[in-house]
Amino acid sequence: MKATVHVFLKPGVLDVQGKAVEAALHGLGWTGVSHARVGRIIAFDLAAADRAAAEAQVKAMCERLLANPVIESWRAEVGEA
Amino acid sequence: MKATVHVFLKPGVLDVQGKAVEAALHGLGWTGVSHARVGRIIAFDLAAADRAAAEAQVKAMCERLLANPVIESWRAEVGEA
Repeated sequence: MKATVHVFLKPGVLDVQGKAVEAALHGLGWTGVSHARVGRIIAFDLAAADRAAAEAQVKAMCERLLANPVIESWRAEVGEA
Repeated sequence: MKATVHVFLKPGVLDVQGKAVEAALHGLGWTGVSHARVGRIIAFDLAAADRAAAEAQVKAMCERLLANPVIESWRAEVGEA
């Protein structure tokens, strides 16, 4: 199975990377850019019996390691390899 | 328009973050994880006349600022707000 996890800061949390990207794009002349947010993607292969088992494993990984639940939200996709 | 840019290290480039995530997941007992890669997502709103104009702008942004073409590859999606 292929798993892809998207991690973003929660909406209320100041995203300094996003602000920096937005300011840099404005500085290069792209003034139509707004609400820039920077997150991370973690993609990996996973040995699992079926899709439900893989999804349950990925959820546990996100809660224990891949995201900080205090300030970050996550979304995971599991697909065939 | 909503733009989402995914940036990953190119396949031949050592992804130390990915290796660290993989080792940590193995350490927590998820030994079925392999080929972990860590990338980043940049999401933003973009004022553009139409989809083609937005896509051209996002391509230029990726080439000039958002990705390092020496070691990174990128993929962009542009959709309605």
